[in-house]
Amino acid sequence: MSSDAAADIMDGTHSALRTHGYAGLTMQDIADEAGLSTAALHYHFDCKHDLLVAFLDRLFEQFEARIAELDGDDAAERLLSLVETVLLPPTDDDPHEFRTALLEIEAQAPYDDAFRARLERFDETFTARVRSILETGVEEGTFAADVDPDEVASFVVTYVRGARTQNVAVGTPLDDSLAAFRDYVEGTLLADDGGAGE
Amino acid sequence: MSSDAAADIMDGTHSALRTHGYAGLTMQDIADEAGLSTAALHYHFDCKHDLLVAFLDRLFEQFEARIAELDGDDAAERLLSLVETVLLPPTDDDPHEFRTALLEIEAQAPYDDAFRARLERFDETFTARVRSILETGVEEGTFAADVDPDEVASFVVTYVRGARTQNVAVGTPLDDSLAAFRDYVEGTLLADDGGAGE
Repeated sequence: MSSDAAADIMDGTHSALRTHGYAGLTMQDIADEAGLSTAALHYHFDCKHDLLVAFLDRLFEQFEARIAELDGDDAAERLLSLVETVLLPPTDDDPHEFRTALLEIEAQAPYDDAFRARLERFDETFTARVRSILETGVEEGTFAADVDPDEVASFVVTYVRGARTQNVAVGTPLDDSLAAFRDYVEGTLLADDGGAGE
Repeated sequence: MSSDAAADIMDGTHSALRTHGYAGLTMQDIADEAGLSTAALHYHFDCKHDLLVAFLDRLFEQFEARIAELDGDDAAERLLSLVETVLLPPTDDDPHEFRTALLEIEAQAPYDDAFRARLERFDETFTARVRSILETGVEEGTFAADVDPDEVASFVVTYVRGARTQNVAVGTPLDDSLAAFRDYVEGTLLADDGGAGE
Protein backbone atom coordinates (compact mmCIF):
# COMPACT_ATOMS: atom_id res chain seq x y z
CA MET A 1 0.00 0.00 0.00
CA SER A 2 1.39 3.42 -0.82
CA SER A 3 1.99 5.43 2.30
CA ASP A 4 -0.42 8.09 1.03
CA ALA A 5 -3.28 5.64 0.65
CA ALA A 6 -2.43 4.07 4.00
CA ALA A 7 -2.49 7.43 5.74
CA ASP A 8 -5.73 8.42 4.01
CA ILE A 9 -7.43 5.18 5.03
CA MET A 10 -6.25 5.45 8.63
CA ASP A 11 -7.27 9.12 8.88
CA GLY A 12 -10.60 8.25 7.27
CA THR A 13 -11.14 5.49 9.82
CA HIS A 14 -10.45 7.92 12.63
CA SER A 15 -12.99 10.40 11.26
CA ALA A 16 -15.55 7.70 10.51
CA LEU A 17 -15.31 6.28 14.06
CA ARG A 18 -15.90 9.77 15.43
CA THR A 19 -18.86 10.41 13.16
CA HIS A 20 -20.54 7.00 13.12
CA GLY A 21 -19.26 5.16 16.20
CA TYR A 22 -18.06 1.59 16.03
CA ALA A 23 -21.27 -0.43 15.96
CA GLY A 24 -22.79 1.01 12.79
CA LEU A 25 -19.55 1.69 10.95
CA THR A 26 -19.40 0.57 7.30
CA MET A 27 -16.61 0.39 4.73
CA GLN A 28 -18.60 3.01 2.80
CA ASP A 29 -18.40 5.41 5.79
CA ILE A 30 -14.65 4.96 5.93
CA ALA A 31 -14.27 5.34 2.16
CA ASP A 32 -16.30 8.55 2.25
CA GLU A 33 -14.18 10.01 5.05
CA ALA A 34 -10.96 8.91 3.33
CA GLY A 35 -12.02 10.32 -0.05
CA LEU A 36 -11.52 6.90 -1.66
CA SER A 37 -13.76 4.28 -3.23
CA THR A 38 -14.79 1.18 -1.27
CA ALA A 39 -12.98 -0.76 -4.02
CA ALA A 40 -9.77 1.02 -3.04
CA LEU A 41 -10.39 0.11 0.60
CA HIS A 42 -11.06 -3.52 -0.27
CA TYR A 43 -7.88 -3.58 -2.34
CA HIS A 44 -5.95 -2.96 0.89
CA PHE A 45 -8.14 -4.70 3.46
CA ASP A 46 -10.30 -7.79 3.09
CA CYS A 47 -12.90 -6.53 5.52
CA LYS A 48 -13.77 -3.87 8.04
CA HIS A 49 -12.37 -6.00 10.84
CA ASP A 50 -8.90 -6.23 9.27
CA LEU A 51 -8.95 -2.51 8.67
CA LEU A 52 -9.88 -1.78 12.30
CA VAL A 53 -7.14 -4.07 13.57
CA ALA A 54 -4.63 -2.15 11.42
CA PHE A 55 -6.10 1.06 12.79
CA LEU A 56 -5.56 -0.13 16.38
CA ASP A 57 -1.97 -0.99 15.45
CA ARG A 58 -1.40 2.51 14.16
CA LEU A 59 -3.02 3.98 17.26
CA PHE A 60 -0.65 1.92 19.38
CA GLU A 61 2.40 3.20 17.48
CA GLN A 62 1.23 6.76 18.05
CA PHE A 63 0.64 5.99 21.72
CA GLU A 64 4.11 4.49 22.10
CA ALA A 65 5.71 7.55 20.51
CA ARG A 66 3.63 9.88 22.65
CA ILE A 67 4.59 8.29 25.96
CA ALA A 68 8.26 7.84 25.08
CA GLU A 69 9.14 11.49 25.71
CA LEU A 70 7.68 13.03 28.85
CA ASP A 71 8.24 16.44 30.36
CA GLY A 72 9.22 16.72 33.99
CA ASP A 73 12.21 17.33 36.23
CA ASP A 74 11.44 14.42 38.51
CA ALA A 75 9.50 11.17 38.46
CA ALA A 76 6.36 12.70 39.96
CA GLU A 77 6.16 15.28 37.19
CA ARG A 78 6.81 12.63 34.55
CA LEU A 79 4.05 10.43 36.01
CA LEU A 80 1.59 13.33 35.95
CA SER A 81 2.69 14.20 32.43
CA LEU A 82 2.14 10.59 31.33
CA VAL A 83 -1.35 10.37 32.80
CA GLU A 84 -2.24 13.76 31.38
CA THR A 85 -1.09 12.59 27.94
CA VAL A 86 -3.36 9.54 28.15
CA LEU A 87 -6.37 11.39 29.57
CA LEU A 88 -6.01 14.64 27.65
CA PRO A 89 -3.79 14.18 24.61
CA PRO A 90 -2.30 17.51 23.52
CA THR A 91 -3.50 17.07 19.94
CA ASP A 92 -7.14 17.12 18.95
CA ASP A 93 -7.38 13.46 17.94
CA ASP A 94 -9.17 12.10 21.01
CA PRO A 95 -12.51 13.92 21.23
CA HIS A 96 -15.45 12.49 23.18
CA GLU A 97 -16.87 10.76 20.11
CA PHE A 98 -13.60 8.95 19.54
CA ARG A 99 -13.28 7.87 23.17
CA THR A 100 -16.82 6.53 22.89
CA ALA A 101 -15.93 4.47 19.80
CA LEU A 102 -12.87 3.09 21.61
CA LEU A 103 -15.04 2.06 24.56
CA GLU A 104 -17.33 0.25 22.11
CA ILE A 105 -14.27 -1.60 20.83
CA GLU A 106 -13.22 -2.43 24.42
CA ALA A 107 -16.67 -3.91 25.02
CA GLN A 108 -16.15 -6.11 21.93
CA ALA A 109 -12.80 -7.43 23.14
CA PRO A 110 -14.20 -10.52 24.88
CA TYR A 111 -15.67 -11.62 21.53
CA ASP A 112 -12.70 -10.63 19.37
CA ASP A 113 -9.21 -12.05 19.93
CA ALA A 114 -7.51 -9.58 17.57
CA PHE A 115 -9.01 -6.56 19.37
CA ARG A 116 -8.22 -8.15 22.71
CA ALA A 117 -4.55 -8.69 21.81
CA ARG A 118 -4.23 -5.03 20.73
CA LEU A 119 -5.86 -3.73 23.92
CA GLU A 120 -3.59 -5.93 26.02
CA ARG A 121 -0.58 -4.46 24.29
CA PHE A 122 -1.75 -0.93 25.10
CA ASP A 123 -2.26 -1.97 28.68
CA GLU A 124 1.07 -3.72 29.08
CA THR A 125 2.98 -0.84 27.51
CA PHE A 126 1.23 1.77 29.61
CA THR A 127 1.68 -0.30 32.78
CA ALA A 128 5.38 -0.84 32.04
CA ARG A 129 5.89 2.90 31.49
CA VAL A 130 4.19 3.78 34.79
CA ARG A 131 6.16 1.09 36.61
CA SER A 132 9.47 2.33 35.22
CA ILE A 133 8.71 5.91 36.31
CA LEU A 134 7.76 4.64 39.78
CA GLU A 135 10.98 2.62 40.06
CA THR A 136 13.08 5.62 39.10
CA GLY A 137 11.11 7.81 41.50
CA VAL A 138 11.67 5.46 44.43
CA GLU A 139 15.38 5.24 43.60
CA GLU A 140 15.80 9.00 43.29
CA GLY A 141 13.79 9.55 46.49
CA THR A 142 10.89 11.44 44.88
CA PHE A 143 8.50 8.65 45.82
CA ALA A 144 8.27 7.07 49.26
CA ALA A 145 10.43 4.00 49.78
CA ASP A 146 7.39 1.81 50.51
CA VAL A 147 5.79 2.50 47.10
CA ASP A 148 5.54 -0.87 45.33
CA PRO A 149 6.02 -0.06 41.61
CA ASP A 150 4.20 -3.18 40.36
CA GLU A 151 1.18 -2.72 42.53
CA VAL A 152 0.89 1.04 42.12
CA ALA A 153 1.33 0.76 38.34
CA SER A 154 -1.68 -1.58 38.09
CA PHE A 155 -3.65 0.71 40.35
CA VAL A 156 -2.83 3.77 38.24
CA VAL A 157 -3.64 2.06 34.93
CA THR A 158 -6.97 0.86 36.33
CA TYR A 159 -7.78 4.37 37.54
CA VAL A 160 -6.96 5.92 34.17
CA ARG A 161 -9.16 3.41 32.38
CA GLY A 162 -11.92 4.24 34.83
CA ALA A 163 -11.56 7.95 34.11
CA ARG A 164 -11.98 7.37 30.38
CA THR A 165 -14.97 5.03 30.85
CA GLN A 166 -16.53 7.42 33.36
CA ASN A 167 -16.15 10.28 30.91
CA VAL A 168 -17.97 8.36 28.17
CA ALA A 169 -20.65 6.74 30.33
CA VAL A 170 -21.66 9.56 32.67
CA GLY A 171 -19.74 12.59 31.41
CA THR A 172 -17.33 13.11 34.31
CA PRO A 173 -14.85 15.73 33.01
CA LEU A 174 -11.37 14.32 32.37
CA ASP A 175 -9.94 17.45 34.00
CA ASP A 176 -11.60 16.49 37.27
CA SER A 177 -10.25 12.95 37.11
CA LEU A 178 -6.79 14.31 36.35
CA ALA A 179 -6.96 16.71 39.32
CA ALA A 180 -7.99 13.85 41.62
CA PHE A 181 -5.08 11.81 40.31
CA ARG A 182 -2.70 14.69 41.06
CA ASP A 183 -3.96 14.73 44.65
CA TYR A 184 -3.44 10.98 44.86
CA VAL A 185 0.17 11.31 43.70
CA GLU A 186 0.90 14.19 46.07
CA GLY A 187 -0.92 12.69 49.04
CA THR A 188 0.12 9.06 48.64
CA LEU A 189 3.20 8.50 46.54
CA LEU A 190 5.53 11.41 47.30
CA ALA A 191 8.26 10.91 49.88
CA ASP A 192 7.59 12.94 53.04
CA ASP A 193 10.56 15.21 52.42
CA GLY A 194 9.11 16.17 49.04
CA GLY A 195 11.88 14.53 47.05
CA ALA A 196 15.62 14.07 47.40
CA GLY A 197 16.41 17.26 45.55
CA GLU A 198 14.70 19.58 48.02
CA MET B 1 -48.15 -6.21 34.29
CA SER B 2 -48.47 -9.14 36.67
CA SER B 3 -45.47 -9.44 38.95
CA ASP B 4 -44.82 -12.95 37.61
CA ALA B 5 -44.62 -11.77 34.00
CA ALA B 6 -42.50 -8.80 35.07
CA ALA B 7 -40.05 -11.02 36.92
CA ASP B 8 -39.90 -13.50 34.02
CA ILE B 9 -39.20 -10.74 31.50
CA MET B 10 -36.51 -9.15 33.68
CA ASP B 11 -34.86 -12.51 34.38
CA GLY B 12 -35.09 -13.35 30.70
CA THR B 13 -33.42 -10.04 29.81
CA HIS B 14 -30.61 -10.79 32.22
CA SER B 15 -30.04 -14.23 30.66
CA ALA B 16 -30.34 -12.90 27.13
CA LEU B 17 -27.78 -10.14 27.74
CA ARG B 18 -25.38 -12.76 29.09
CA THR B 19 -25.92 -15.08 26.15
CA HIS B 20 -26.20 -12.60 23.26
CA GLY B 21 -24.60 -9.38 24.50
CA TYR B 22 -26.26 -6.02 24.00
CA ALA B 23 -25.52 -5.18 20.37
CA GLY B 24 -27.21 -8.17 18.74
CA LEU B 25 -29.99 -8.63 21.29
CA THR B 26 -33.51 -9.13 19.91
CA MET B 27 -36.95 -9.27 21.52
CA GLN B 28 -37.05 -12.89 20.31
CA ASP B 29 -33.88 -13.68 22.32
CA ILE B 30 -35.45 -12.19 25.45
CA ALA B 31 -38.76 -13.96 24.84
CA ASP B 32 -36.94 -17.28 24.45
CA GLU B 33 -35.02 -16.80 27.69
CA ALA B 34 -38.16 -15.66 29.52
CA GLY B 35 -40.24 -18.57 28.22
CA LEU B 36 -42.78 -16.15 26.77
CA SER B 37 -43.93 -15.13 23.29
CA THR B 38 -42.68 -11.94 21.67
CA ALA B 39 -46.35 -10.88 21.63
CA ALA B 40 -46.36 -11.13 25.45
CA LEU B 41 -43.21 -9.01 25.58
CA HIS B 42 -44.68 -6.42 23.24
CA TYR B 43 -47.81 -6.35 25.36
CA HIS B 44 -45.69 -5.00 28.24
CA PHE B 45 -43.03 -3.04 26.35
CA ASP B 46 -43.30 -1.11 23.09
CA CYS B 47 -39.77 -1.94 22.06
CA LYS B 48 -36.47 -3.42 23.14
CA HIS B 49 -35.24 -0.04 24.28
CA ASP B 50 -38.12 0.49 26.73
CA LEU B 51 -37.57 -2.99 28.05
CA LEU B 52 -33.86 -2.38 28.59
CA VAL B 53 -34.55 0.90 30.36
CA ALA B 54 -36.92 -0.95 32.71
CA PHE B 55 -34.22 -3.58 33.17
CA LEU B 56 -31.69 -0.91 34.17
CA ASP B 57 -34.23 0.46 36.64
CA ARG B 58 -34.62 -2.96 38.23
CA LEU B 59 -30.86 -3.40 38.31
CA PHE B 60 -30.59 -0.07 40.10
CA GLU B 61 -33.16 -1.12 42.74
CA GLN B 62 -31.19 -4.30 43.38
CA PHE B 63 -27.97 -2.28 43.58
CA GLU B 64 -29.52 0.15 46.08
CA ALA B 65 -30.73 -2.72 48.27
CA ARG B 66 -27.36 -4.43 48.07
CA ILE B 67 -25.34 -1.42 49.16
CA ALA B 68 -27.78 -0.36 51.91
CA GLU B 69 -26.58 -3.02 54.35
CA LEU B 70 -22.85 -3.48 54.63
CA ASP B 71 -20.80 -5.64 56.95
CA GLY B 72 -18.01 -4.08 58.94
CA ASP B 73 -17.17 -2.88 62.43
CA ASP B 74 -15.69 0.39 61.22
CA ALA B 75 -15.81 2.65 58.18
CA ALA B 76 -12.76 1.06 56.53
CA GLU B 77 -14.36 -2.37 56.65
CA ARG B 78 -17.64 -0.99 55.34
CA LEU B 79 -15.84 0.75 52.47
CA LEU B 80 -14.06 -2.47 51.53
CA SER B 81 -17.31 -4.38 51.83
CA LEU B 82 -19.03 -1.86 49.53
CA VAL B 83 -16.35 -2.03 46.86
CA GLU B 84 -16.26 -5.81 47.09
CA THR B 85 -20.04 -5.89 46.61
CA VAL B 86 -19.76 -3.80 43.46
CA LEU B 87 -16.76 -5.65 42.03
CA LEU B 88 -17.65 -9.16 43.13
CA PRO B 89 -21.35 -9.41 44.00
CA PRO B 90 -22.00 -12.34 46.34
CA THR B 91 -24.70 -13.77 44.08
CA ASP B 92 -24.00 -15.23 40.68
CA ASP B 93 -25.79 -12.53 38.68
CA ASP B 94 -22.75 -10.59 37.45
CA PRO B 95 -20.63 -12.99 35.39
CA HIS B 96 -18.13 -11.77 32.81
CA GLU B 97 -20.66 -11.95 29.97
CA PHE B 98 -23.04 -9.70 31.89
CA ARG B 99 -20.33 -7.17 32.76
CA THR B 100 -19.46 -7.10 29.06
CA ALA B 101 -23.08 -6.35 28.10
CA LEU B 102 -23.19 -3.56 30.69
CA LEU B 103 -20.02 -2.06 29.22
CA GLU B 104 -21.67 -2.13 25.79
CA ILE B 105 -24.57 -0.21 27.31
CA GLU B 106 -22.15 2.28 28.90
CA ALA B 107 -20.59 2.86 25.48
CA GLN B 108 -24.11 3.63 24.13
CA ALA B 109 -24.84 6.19 26.83
CA PRO B 110 -23.60 9.21 24.82
CA TYR B 111 -26.18 8.35 22.15
CA ASP B 112 -29.02 7.44 24.50
CA ASP B 113 -30.39 9.86 27.08
CA ALA B 114 -32.46 7.24 28.90
CA PHE B 115 -29.44 4.95 29.38
CA ARG B 116 -27.33 7.92 30.35
CA ALA B 117 -29.80 9.04 33.04
CA ARG B 118 -29.83 5.52 34.53
CA LEU B 119 -26.04 5.25 34.57
CA GLU B 120 -25.79 8.67 36.21
CA ARG B 121 -28.16 7.52 38.94
CA PHE B 122 -25.98 4.45 39.62
CA ASP B 123 -22.96 6.70 39.78
CA GLU B 124 -24.49 9.32 42.04
CA THR B 125 -25.86 6.71 44.43
CA PHE B 126 -22.58 4.81 44.60
CA THR B 127 -20.60 8.04 45.04
CA ALA B 128 -22.96 9.25 47.81
CA ARG B 129 -22.61 5.92 49.64
CA VAL B 130 -18.79 6.04 49.47
CA ARG B 131 -18.81 9.69 50.60
CA SER B 132 -21.06 8.96 53.57
CA ILE B 133 -18.80 6.08 54.70
CA LEU B 134 -15.77 8.35 54.36
CA GLU B 135 -17.44 11.13 56.38
CA THR B 136 -18.31 8.71 59.17
CA GLY B 137 -14.81 7.27 59.05
CA VAL B 138 -13.17 10.67 59.40
CA GLU B 139 -15.51 11.55 62.28
CA GLU B 140 -14.90 8.29 64.12
CA GLY B 141 -11.15 8.57 63.52
CA THR B 142 -10.79 5.46 61.35
CA PHE B 143 -9.74 7.60 58.39
CA ALA B 144 -7.12 10.33 58.51
CA ALA B 145 -8.44 13.82 59.27
CA ASP B 146 -7.13 15.14 55.95
CA VAL B 147 -9.20 12.70 53.86
CA ASP B 148 -11.56 14.82 51.74
CA PRO B 149 -14.75 12.72 51.43
CA ASP B 150 -15.94 14.38 48.20
CA GLU B 151 -12.66 14.05 46.40
CA VAL B 152 -11.84 10.54 47.59
CA ALA B 153 -15.38 9.35 46.79
CA SER B 154 -14.98 10.41 43.13
CA PHE B 155 -11.55 8.82 43.03
CA VAL B 156 -12.86 5.52 44.41
CA VAL B 157 -15.86 5.41 42.05
CA THR B 158 -13.58 6.11 39.08
CA TYR B 159 -11.21 3.34 40.18
CA VAL B 160 -14.04 0.83 40.58
CA ARG B 161 -15.36 1.65 37.12
CA GLY B 162 -11.86 1.18 35.78
CA ALA B 163 -11.59 -2.22 37.42
CA ARG B 164 -14.79 -3.39 35.75
CA THR B 165 -13.78 -2.01 32.33
CA GLN B 166 -10.29 -3.46 32.71
CA ASN B 167 -11.77 -6.85 33.50
CA VAL B 168 -13.91 -6.83 30.35
CA ALA B 169 -11.37 -5.28 27.98
CA VAL B 170 -8.13 -7.03 28.95
CA GLY B 171 -9.19 -9.65 31.51
CA THR B 172 -7.55 -8.22 34.64
CA PRO B 173 -8.98 -10.34 37.50
CA LEU B 174 -11.40 -8.41 39.72
CA ASP B 175 -9.73 -10.07 42.73
CA ASP B 176 -6.47 -8.33 41.83
CA SER B 177 -8.16 -4.95 41.49
CA LEU B 178 -9.90 -5.48 44.82
CA ALA B 179 -6.60 -6.38 46.53
CA ALA B 180 -4.97 -3.23 45.10
CA PHE B 181 -7.90 -1.21 46.40
CA ARG B 182 -7.46 -2.72 49.87
CA ASP B 183 -3.81 -1.63 49.82
CA TYR B 184 -4.88 1.86 48.78
CA VAL B 185 -7.32 2.10 51.69
CA GLU B 186 -4.78 0.79 54.19
CA GLY B 187 -1.88 2.82 52.87
CA THR B 188 -3.66 6.08 52.13
CA LEU B 189 -6.93 6.54 53.98
CA LEU B 190 -6.45 4.98 57.41
CA ALA B 191 -5.51 7.25 60.29
CA ASP B 192 -1.95 6.62 61.46
CA ASP B 193 -3.11 5.22 64.79
CA GLY B 194 -5.08 2.58 62.92
CA GLY B 195 -8.46 3.84 64.02
CA ALA B 196 -9.98 5.27 67.15
CA GLY B 197 -11.06 1.89 68.44
CA GLU B 198 -7.58 0.38 68.64
